[in-house]
Amino acid sequence: MKLARIGPAGQEKPVLIQRDGTARNISSVVDDISARSIADGILTRLEQIDVAALPTAQLEGVRFGPPVSDVGKIICVGLNYTDHAAEVGLPLPTEPTIFMKGCRPSGANDPVRLPKGAAKGDWEVELGIVIGKAGMYVDEADAYDHVAGFCLFNDLTERSFQMEHGGQWTKGKSFPGFAPLGPWLVTRDELGHPDNLRIWLEVNGVRYQNGNTANLVFGVQQIVSYLSQFYELEPGDLIVTGTPAGVGLGQTPPAFLKSGDVVRLGIDGLGEQQQNILAWED
Amino acid sequence: MKLARIGPAGQEKPVLIQRDGTARNISSVVDDISARSIADGILTRLEQIDVAALPTAQLEGVRFGPPVSDVGKIICVGLNYTDHAAEVGLPLPTEPTIFMKGCRPSGANDPVRLPKGAAKGDWEVELGIVIGKAGMYVDEADAYDHVAGFCLFNDLTERSFQMEHGGQWTKGKSFPGFAPLGPWLVTRDELGHPDNLRIWLEVNGVRYQNGNTANLVFGVQQIVSYLSQFYELEPGDLIVTGTPAGVGLGQTPPAFLKSGDVVRLGIDGLGEQQQNILAWED
Repeated sequence: MKLARIGPAGQEKPVLIQRDGTARNISSVVDDISARSIADGILTRLEQIDVAALPTAQLEGVRFGPPVSDVGKIICVGLNYTDHAAEVGLPLPTEPTIFMKGCRPSGANDPVRLPKGAAKGDWEVELGIVIGKAGMYVDEADAYDHVAGFCLFNDLTERSFQMEHGGQWTKGKSFPGFAPLGPWLVTRDELGHPDNLRIWLEVNGVRYQNGNTANLVFGVQQIVSYLSQFYELEPGDLIVTGTPAGVGLGQTPPAFLKSGDVVRLGIDGLGEQQQNILAWED
Repeated sequence: MKLARIGPAGQEKPVLIQRDGTARNISSVVDDISARSIADGILTRLEQIDVAALPTAQLEGVRFGPPVSDVGKIICVGLNYTDHAAEVGLPLPTEPTIFMKGCRPSGANDPVRLPKGAAKGDWEVELGIVIGKAGMYVDEADAYDHVAGFCLFNDLTERSFQMEHGGQWTKGKSFPGFAPLGPWLVTRDELGHPDNLRIWLEVNGVRYQNGNTANLVFGVQQIVSYLSQFYELEPGDLIVTGTPAGVGLGQTPPAFLKSGDVVRLGIDGLGEQQQNILAWED
């Protein structure tokens, strides 16, 4: 099952996209796809209804909002692909490296505005995990029970803020608009175990990232279990699992985003995003 | 004006505490003290009503919940008192050191459960700033316009998670219950500029922290302005401003929390907290 929220920001309506691509308006079943409706069991309820009886929805030309309206905390795993750790010159961690993003998710194709005066905007295509059930001390074997589904995510980053102003990475990860999520939430029964998915990103048509989730250092079950020792995982929380090689910082010379750039990214089964990059002043 | 939320967890009712200590039930004026009601101007509205006409509320023996029901992000400034940076052996930052906490605020006097198997639980009394108005690129001169008020906060930390498992500090800062907030939100008109307040913490009656907000490296206006370059500040967000010397890690030998300990802390004008410390298994 694929779920999305379509329409202008703040007025999105929930839709379900069937395997054949037909979109169904599910507003008569649920107000919104939210942390609360996920906690209340909307995913199970939607599996049980006859979606063919619901009105169709048009996806052509619509805006995709973030597929969960009120994502809670965003926990990020860093340096989780061997090739990416190497390109940024950091040792491969023996335990997951964790940081947090302090901005709200935006729509998959919403334009991205760079911070004022910043000059090192960078991209990171990532596999996102949306939590479906609360948990602490989750065993790896039970980890998927806590997962509602998966989303495509761009962990946009201002490297100068992350690395040149002291302190911790969150400083470069949290600018508004730096968390495009979606277009869809794909439930785990539909996606299966996301351990062999192509994951890629292009800037202005040039492919910079070209990886596979098979190369995750810590996989989905390990990450969910590990994080549940430090955080209470709650429905609507988002865990993003790190990026493969090919970020701007890893280029020779480094390549960073500028006004007018177009970023495209995708993961097998999770759809694609496209962001037009703007300067703060644009 | 002091605002609090009293009652069992999840069923708190809002009260206003007058300067003479009389508490008034403000449920007829506002459902809850929340990010939304703050954004909708509840603080201004409460200043304009005749509170003496409202029913009194009893504070004896009641539980104080977090004074804002749905705090958004928690942004933390680290190493922000000269003496604390020295005791943990880290250089004084030239720009604020920032990290995030990934747990929800708990009540001022709620018991605190230590993580399973953790052995380096530590305390950090801090001045908390509650944001009242959204902002980006806030000038220092305008910073107070974005502040709803101030709260007492204990930035509880598991040092082994923070420092011995790789990566970033959030790992040791985010356990559920590690963010006691309150008892009150004190509006900025009542507290004034919080630049000369005693800030202290005791464990089992022994005073470990004994500082003054006059010794903040970066003050409230600087912090609000600085952070607004990296984050969109939103009503209900909480910024905590760092702790003075005297944490457990800074003792010789280090002293950490264990089941049965009692932590008391306070800041002039912002009230006191008391937490009974429990092991995970208690």
